[in-house]
Amino acid sequence: MTSPPTDAVRLARAYLSRVAEPFPAALAALVVQVGPVEAAELVRAGEVSPSVASQTSARRAEERAHEDVERIAKIGGRLVIPEDDEWPRWPFVALANARRAGGEPLALWVRGPHDLAEAVDKAVAIVGSRAASGYGEHVAAEFAYGLAQAGVTVVSGAAYGIDGAAHRGALGAGGLTVAVLACGADFAYPAGHQGLLGKISREGLIVSEYAPGVMPARHRFLTRNRLIAALGGGTVVVEAGRRSGAKNTAAITLALGRQLMVVPGPVTSASSVGCHELLRDGQAVSVSSVAEIVESVGRFGDDLATEPAEKESELGAPQGEAMRVYEALGKRCGVSDEVVSVESGVPLERVRALLPELELAGLALQADEGWQKLEVR
Amino acid sequence: MTSPPTDAVRLARAYLSRVAEPFPAALAALVVQVGPVEAAELVRAGEVSPSVASQTSARRAEERAHEDVERIAKIGGRLVIPEDDEWPRWPFVALANARRAGGEPLALWVRGPHDLAEAVDKAVAIVGSRAASGYGEHVAAEFAYGLAQAGVTVVSGAAYGIDGAAHRGALGAGGLTVAVLACGADFAYPAGHQGLLGKISREGLIVSEYAPGVMPARHRFLTRNRLIAALGGGTVVVEAGRRSGAKNTAAITLALGRQLMVVPGPVTSASSVGCHELLRDGQAVSVSSVAEIVESVGRFGDDLATEPAEKESELGAPQGEAMRVYEALGKRCGVSDEVVSVESGVPLERVRALLPELELAGLALQADEGWQKLEVR
Repeated sequence: MTSPPTDAVRLARAYLSRVAEPFPAALAALVVQVGPVEAAELVRAGEVSPSVASQTSARRAEERAHEDVERIAKIGGRLVIPEDDEWPRWPFVALANARRAGGEPLALWVRGPHDLAEAVDKAVAIVGSRAASGYGEHVAAEFAYGLAQAGVTVVSGAAYGIDGAAHRGALGAGGLTVAVLACGADFAYPAGHQGLLGKISREGLIVSEYAPGVMPARHRFLTRNRLIAALGGGTVVVEAGRRSGAKNTAAITLALGRQLMVVPGPVTSASSVGCHELLRDGQAVSVSSVAEIVESVGRFGDDLATEPAEKESELGAPQGEAMRVYEALGKRCGVSDEVVSVESGVPLERVRALLPELELAGLALQADEGWQKLEVR
Repeated sequence: MTSPPTDAVRLARAYLSRVAEPFPAALAALVVQVGPVEAAELVRAGEVSPSVASQTSARRAEERAHEDVERIAKIGGRLVIPEDDEWPRWPFVALANARRAGGEPLALWVRGPHDLAEAVDKAVAIVGSRAASGYGEHVAAEFAYGLAQAGVTVVSGAAYGIDGAAHRGALGAGGLTVAVLACGADFAYPAGHQGLLGKISREGLIVSEYAPGVMPARHRFLTRNRLIAALGGGTVVVEAGRRSGAKNTAAITLALGRQLMVVPGPVTSASSVGCHELLRDGQAVSVSSVAEIVESVGRFGDDLATEPAEKESELGAPQGEAMRVYEALGKRCGVSDEVVSVESGVPLERVRALLPELELAGLALQADEGWQKLEVR
């Protein structure tokens, strides 16, 4: 985009954002067809198809576009629309391709001092149970801290438990975090996270599909979850009980073709049951470290997790016949090569060839009374 | 087998078992070719190919077959050979098909009051670190207990840590457990498990490929691991550090085409690092319960794990428009259907249709002043 959108376009989208409950597929199709200004006019006049009418008739008299745009501006926010440069165009392509998960939003109400598109260029969603365990909150915070240090933005939903720990971890590392809300961006929900949300609005980004003042409701969390999944290059489920909402975000992540990652936990913990179900289904990959998350998300370029130490043979050295000879050596006193042969089952001539090799390797010692073992390490 | 094997056959296999260090591929091939009695004669006389000679020349003068058979009988044991009815024929087919993992043993030294073939007809191997955590030992014991209660035999290696906990769990349930040793079946190794091994020899089975008196050695543990993997219908790795020997058993399990199962644990625990690596490699399935183990092993017939509770929609009822209407209802006082329509974004006529449905479902109440919400549960 070279020329910025006109006020008319922004106000039309502000109106539509207030009038329709996300995600309004028929209305979105109309906006694509005739543009936002014309679409807003048709909705206002009621001159729309039955399916668009069913999405807009209840609130079409709510003419609050100017008021809403002023309201978000008053708290340092803005309405970001698809016509803006900072619209997260690429992350939302997946939404257009996976209709059943809900499409691209009509507009986003945003607070915070960062360009939204740039902020989510390298991003991972971290989600999980509100009723998290100490283990879960610890891991969420550690992973978010590490990702933030690696320059990856942490996207979450600002809920109690895992979400809050993830946001805090990212902020603690001086990194970027994005909170996607299921209510107006001016709303502090949950109430206990008022301080956290204030900090995110100053140091990160708060994003919502809902006009200012819209209250949280259960269906809005489910609609919101698709944005969390879409804005992250992948989703990490840290803890999820059997019926956790995080399983919904996990399902959307898969529907969007994004990498679903799961943190294992004790099988004795109810907070990890949902995670283990996802692992067992075979659609999620297990992640145990920041490096593994970065490797799994992949598209960040050559961020392959370094191999865990040197991958030695699982046998450990020495191997085969040499190992058998080594094991047959005397521990406290030397033994003859004939005894070593019988004990190890290795032919005498091979024993006589192998012993000097073991000696050179510092594993055997030729003493007066015979061959003695030197302990490895 | 209808006629039992002759003493000559048993003594020939006893001799070969003492003479060759398992697994002697060339010797095993000779035994298949000419039979155990003839093979023993040829080995004794040194009239064998260079490859068989390299496996037998060091100990071919060790004529201790009678003595060994008497020695195992004295402690209530026996030499079980392929010609016996109780030879675990089916479990060992996989060994013949996966030569690199080591083939079928020449004979097995066995202690305990059960038929070996019957004991491992329905069996699972449970293995893991010697340096196990309290969590790991707890889970190993619980799973073994549950499997034993379900009539599944628990196979393990009698080591400290996970192995010991698994044997104890199975014994605690009054079930069957098989300990496969890397030394003679008369040998209590590790020493601290003398009591446990005694109990297993009385209530379960102790099995070894090694003649009485053979000492444990590192290479023998690796050779032994293939028998653990082969005797179990699948292998459960409960805990494994980065370099745990359990990873060797895991690799053999896969080589044998058996189901590899892994128990997840805290990502903060070094004892679970190896398990999480196996999970991440994608070759192991995650198991969190006895039911999941039984389901994964599969071949036990129709033992499918029962679905976790009723698998409800992840949205929870009510859904779609109905949910939005439900969420828009007044909590403490009633609201008009028009207000519900604006708040929910659902057209008035749909709201008027849905409200009676919600009332019937016990989710809404029509009071004097309007519609009121009834909480679910």
